[in-house]
Amino acid sequence: MNLIILGSVAFDAIETPYGKTDKIIGGAGSYISLAASYLTDSLGLVSVVGEDFPEEYLNLLKSKKIDIEGIEIKENQKTFFWSGKYHSNMNKRDTLITELNVLADFKPKVPDAYKDADFLMLGNLCPDMQMMVLEQLNKRPKMIALDTMNFWIDQNPDKLKEVIKKTDLLIINDEEVKLLSNSDNLVKGAKEILKQGVKYIVVKKGEHGALLFGEDQIFSAPALPLESVFDPTGAGDTFAGGLIGYLASQNDTSFETIKTAVVVGSVLASFNVEKFGTEKIANLNSDMIKERFNKFVSLTSFATL
Amino acid sequence: MNLIILGSVAFDAIETPYGKTDKIIGGAGSYISLAASYLTDSLGLVSVVGEDFPEEYLNLLKSKKIDIEGIEIKENQKTFFWSGKYHSNMNKRDTLITELNVLADFKPKVPDAYKDADFLMLGNLCPDMQMMVLEQLNKRPKMIALDTMNFWIDQNPDKLKEVIKKTDLLIINDEEVKLLSNSDNLVKGAKEILKQGVKYIVVKKGEHGALLFGEDQIFSAPALPLESVFDPTGAGDTFAGGLIGYLASQNDTSFETIKTAVVVGSVLASFNVEKFGTEKIANLNSDMIKERFNKFVSLTSFATL
Repeated sequence: MNLIILGSVAFDAIETPYGKTDKIIGGAGSYISLAASYLTDSLGLVSVVGEDFPEEYLNLLKSKKIDIEGIEIKENQKTFFWSGKYHSNMNKRDTLITELNVLADFKPKVPDAYKDADFLMLGNLCPDMQMMVLEQLNKRPKMIALDTMNFWIDQNPDKLKEVIKKTDLLIINDEEVKLLSNSDNLVKGAKEILKQGVKYIVVKKGEHGALLFGEDQIFSAPALPLESVFDPTGAGDTFAGGLIGYLASQNDTSFETIKTAVVVGSVLASFNVEKFGTEKIANLNSDMIKERFNKFVSLTSFATL
Repeated sequence: MNLIILGSVAFDAIETPYGKTDKIIGGAGSYISLAASYLTDSLGLVSVVGEDFPEEYLNLLKSKKIDIEGIEIKENQKTFFWSGKYHSNMNKRDTLITELNVLADFKPKVPDAYKDADFLMLGNLCPDMQMMVLEQLNKRPKMIALDTMNFWIDQNPDKLKEVIKKTDLLIINDEEVKLLSNSDNLVKGAKEILKQGVKYIVVKKGEHGALLFGEDQIFSAPALPLESVFDPTGAGDTFAGGLIGYLASQNDTSFETIKTAVVVGSVLASFNVEKFGTEKIANLNSDMIKERFNKFVSLTSFATL
């Protein structure tokens, strides 16, 4: 196994100005692994679902060559359920329902076949669960990437700091940089976090793209300017999946390679928002990805002086 | 004369969290022409000041080879004065004082030597004044660039639309795109404005960079990620000055050249915010500009798939 992903697999019910869905497949683990599956075919997902989770959705993951041995199916329990509603500008959403269900006391179990992976993506979950995965590995991966959110920064900062200390690449949004660093300035904040031991930080800025910070190096990637965003759910996870999937495919962790990986992540995220939930991200191919990548190249290239 | 600039020359008094100034040189015309002066030495400024305006400031402009025949000096009148205070995050400012003085009934007079210019930058002013400049020219310039603001969009929309119809390149910020187009989406809004006859739109997004829209083409330029912004006054004007100055120096108005011009504008703007008022922008040289340009190149370059 080249790439392990830890992340929720869930039911989502989403409402946007364009329509609403019943319970569909969601969760950070689903988005990350689906996105990464277009870059590498040696990946496994560590997660948990209830017995109500449809075979059809597990088969979708399997059809993408995502190993699901790491997805525990808990009898007599229900899958994590999230429901949210987006406002007209799509930048704000209200959470309507959160039913943790199987996620409440989730203790990730890493299958033996995963334990020597070179790349690890710890999706946004309780830092205790993220740490449990780290503790089960046979060796330290070449790259440990981490996502988190304001909730864990507020509620579980000590454990989160422990996990961050073991992390190479932090993938967070601009607000989270400010929360983690107590700095109002993104650049200062990122530099402060780098001092805590992280090698690289990718700051997701939504429609404004992403910034990659390394020691004394910065890279700026744009987002694709879009006329409409159908459903932003999972865009950040999809971004992370494309990013870590590309790194795993290159078996490289240099700043140069992470730059391209950030663009690949942006490419995948730009697809994700075009349809509800995972619908778009479940139906891509490498030609579509390459074509969209070339759009990013022309979007950013200019003649030098 | 290759490039004409219309814009205010003013006294500014600025307060930021880093300090405050007495009355210093300000105004869109000052920033635009100082920035453009590093790119072309055939430029003239159309503006007005009162007899209180110091010789020293006029000499500063002259020392940059900016022709000031177009700056009218009104006897017994006072120069336009603006005073503002920035809040801690620098994205919001309060206007403390606006004394229009000579600007109240300004009727721009274009010197004969300016009337065959190929490039014209209409800085942010009342659309009536912008139109008066257009009406005095001997021939239509190759490129007419226009800046405006929410105040004129609200107060003088009909005249502004007339001026926009004669414009090739609109340089405005993201809020102004939404106001001018009644669209909440930047891409849709820009496309709508393009339909009104403008060939190109540059959307300034502050710390998030700038977007250039042409017919079926988009270019995204980043802003330089900065650890501190000392004083953002005039950043948008400086950006416009670098942009139009570069186009004038290349004597070209193609999308490809405007892309590089947007980066040059971003380079100049990144300098401008480092010190109060025009202090930084009055003390650059071409090596500094080239070096900073190369920073933008490395900030945005990535290996393709």
